[in-house]
Amino acid sequence: MKKLRKKVYMTAGFNTVSLGTGRKEFHPKKPRPGIEHYIKESGEGTLSKIGGGKNIDESVIGNFMAARFNKQANLPGFIPMIDKDLHGKPATSVEGACGSGGLALMAGIRSVLAETADVVLTIGVEVQNTVKAIYGADILAGAGWYQERKKGHAYFFPGQFSDRAGAYFEKYGREKSRKGLARWFRNAIENARLCPTAQEFHNKVEDLEALGMSEPNGRTFVDNLNVFDCSKVSDGASSIAIVSEEGLEKIGIEKKDAIEVVGWGQCEADITAPPEDLTTLSTIKMAAEEALASAGITIDDLGTIETHDCFTIAGILAVEALGFAKPGGGADFVAEGNTARDGKIPMNTTGGLIGWGHPTGATGVHQAVTIWEQLTGRAGDAQINIDPKKPYGLTINMGGDDVTVVAIVYKRG
Amino acid sequence: MKKLRKKVYMTAGFNTVSLGTGRKEFHPKKPRPGIEHYIKESGEGTLSKIGGGKNIDESVIGNFMAARFNKQANLPGFIPMIDKDLHGKPATSVEGACGSGGLALMAGIRSVLAETADVVLTIGVEVQNTVKAIYGADILAGAGWYQERKKGHAYFFPGQFSDRAGAYFEKYGREKSRKGLARWFRNAIENARLCPTAQEFHNKVEDLEALGMSEPNGRTFVDNLNVFDCSKVSDGASSIAIVSEEGLEKIGIEKKDAIEVVGWGQCEADITAPPEDLTTLSTIKMAAEEALASAGITIDDLGTIETHDCFTIAGILAVEALGFAKPGGGADFVAEGNTARDGKIPMNTTGGLIGWGHPTGATGVHQAVTIWEQLTGRAGDAQINIDPKKPYGLTINMGGDDVTVVAIVYKRG
Repeated sequence: MKKLRKKVYMTAGFNTVSLGTGRKEFHPKKPRPGIEHYIKESGEGTLSKIGGGKNIDESVIGNFMAARFNKQANLPGFIPMIDKDLHGKPATSVEGACGSGGLALMAGIRSVLAETADVVLTIGVEVQNTVKAIYGADILAGAGWYQERKKGHAYFFPGQFSDRAGAYFEKYGREKSRKGLARWFRNAIENARLCPTAQEFHNKVEDLEALGMSEPNGRTFVDNLNVFDCSKVSDGASSIAIVSEEGLEKIGIEKKDAIEVVGWGQCEADITAPPEDLTTLSTIKMAAEEALASAGITIDDLGTIETHDCFTIAGILAVEALGFAKPGGGADFVAEGNTARDGKIPMNTTGGLIGWGHPTGATGVHQAVTIWEQLTGRAGDAQINIDPKKPYGLTINMGGDDVTVVAIVYKRG
Repeated sequence: MKKLRKKVYMTAGFNTVSLGTGRKEFHPKKPRPGIEHYIKESGEGTLSKIGGGKNIDESVIGNFMAARFNKQANLPGFIPMIDKDLHGKPATSVEGACGSGGLALMAGIRSVLAETADVVLTIGVEVQNTVKAIYGADILAGAGWYQERKKGHAYFFPGQFSDRAGAYFEKYGREKSRKGLARWFRNAIENARLCPTAQEFHNKVEDLEALGMSEPNGRTFVDNLNVFDCSKVSDGASSIAIVSEEGLEKIGIEKKDAIEVVGWGQCEADITAPPEDLTTLSTIKMAAEEALASAGITIDDLGTIETHDCFTIAGILAVEALGFAKPGGGADFVAEGNTARDGKIPMNTTGGLIGWGHPTGATGVHQAVTIWEQLTGRAGDAQINIDPKKPYGLTINMGGDDVTVVAIVYKRG
């Protein structure tokens, strides 16, 4: 049931800054903008490129935990605040943990296919720096089965992925695996430094691979991952317009300035069941395979990929899930530079969750914005060269530990 | 943009018990089922009528505040727990405060129109008795703009609607208005006593209208509403299948056992802007008018209505918003018995939010289940006689104070 009954495009992407440690203007004790600010800045950013709120038929907002980080729900109610022409029009909020942004994209795609909308404003947002990291970890544990939380690490999700890394190390060797993780980190930071909205934009440390090689310290953090293996705690929002062909005409955007959605996989796993194999991201594998099959392409047609690297190990495992390397070969594939910006298959070219930042509910939308920028030549200093024979991009967004996954394939418009 | 590009039906509704005070088996200090239980019971209830999970293409779950009541998010992850045949299929959670259930219905409708699904499992759920009512009131305040919360009453939403009632009393007279509120309460409880899943099913008090006339006590609660004017604190879930014509065939259900979706209005107001007129529910008015217009009918074609009576005054104001009475005439219209089960336009025939219960994220779905039961003759002791010349039903579901509204028009299949 993944046939696209009509053409769907994305255009007019916008990112706020990803704010948090690593960013010059971030100070943990000084007042910061609230969630309202991010929704408004990002919504206005997209609307200003497509003729304002009068051109919007529906809106979707992706968010994970405003209920706890900001004590705020009823998020659709913030949409009409962006532009008075959005008053009275349909708005919906979607949630699927760190996969909320991907679900927002899918909701927008469905609205266009349903012909209830020709132009959908799609926003992802999260504002997480409202609490200290250790309390934030408890909040984010709501992406897993909370009943299991007490059995887990104080840093719940780092603990989950540390267990995955530990199983990988044991099976395939600690030293060579660590080199893959360190290179993933280096790529992420190098890419982020080319993107002015990235959280790591101002970071100046030189020997990134040495940092990435740091020995994990299980007494202060988790057993198998160091802090450089982790995505960031971020405040931010991203937005993009999802439109039909008629919608493109209405907003006066040419196809060359848009990307076309040509396939997807949206897959859900049981949050109450532990992963069958810690060294495999099987839901990501399923979603990516469905996405590629529905688009009628293979990984050889992909010019660039944005994948959900909440931890470096998730990046390595996604490389294997996609089939770029066999099980156990992902670390070497990355260590050899194949996923770097000038590599065989450039991944996370504006820094991903580790380099750009991870405002959880926004991340899935941010991935689509990066693909739009790269495929339409708008990525500025972060622009990569895309082989004209590989005009496709892929995003993989994950909520929880391989539970809620959305993979989307895009083509230059 | 509300034309239905293909036919959409609902069938196989199911409600769990609405658990909370008023229910015999409820004991505030004894352990109770968690949110997982409600999702599973309700999902299985619908699946058992339509051939199981193998017939489902997509799922949607509506929930407001599991993040705070249960510290749980990533709710789509609980869908595959219902039935192993749901593993790997798309699932999405939607949020719009107490309007979350209505948003879930709209998401399911869009999936069918988009042809990404022929059969959508749609669930609404909330489990609220995890905290004491006064802390629950703080959690529920997240349905409003939380920044304004400190200016409001400790019981935030009762305070908001008390202000609406106060404005109504001042404009149209306290005594005659109070009679309308008391009759709304009496109808709600009388209807609930006919429905075995209702929270008020076991309540035996006789003189309901006298209770409803109780003088509000601003020292212990709010100024203009008594506790009988309020909906309940409830744990519960409701579910329904949303299907195409092809889907009906696939699940072996005849049209006479389904209801057809023939129109809707989904409207969003700015949560940061105070209501222009406390005595008018203008977003409800807009959504209901759009719903009726898109269905091509008037209020005279409606055989029954489920409307969002989070407080009795919201019921009265909805009567006026729909045009059954002029501004100020709603209280009399209700007091005269016009909205009772044998009245001119029966409303909330299984008790509504005040009598059946208000598991917030489930309520919108519960309303659709009641309309399905009534229009297909499945309401048991609560069954009303519907004039064959009025084969339409309407649901109005509201999130926050007139902020997120979904109104849907249904027709006997």
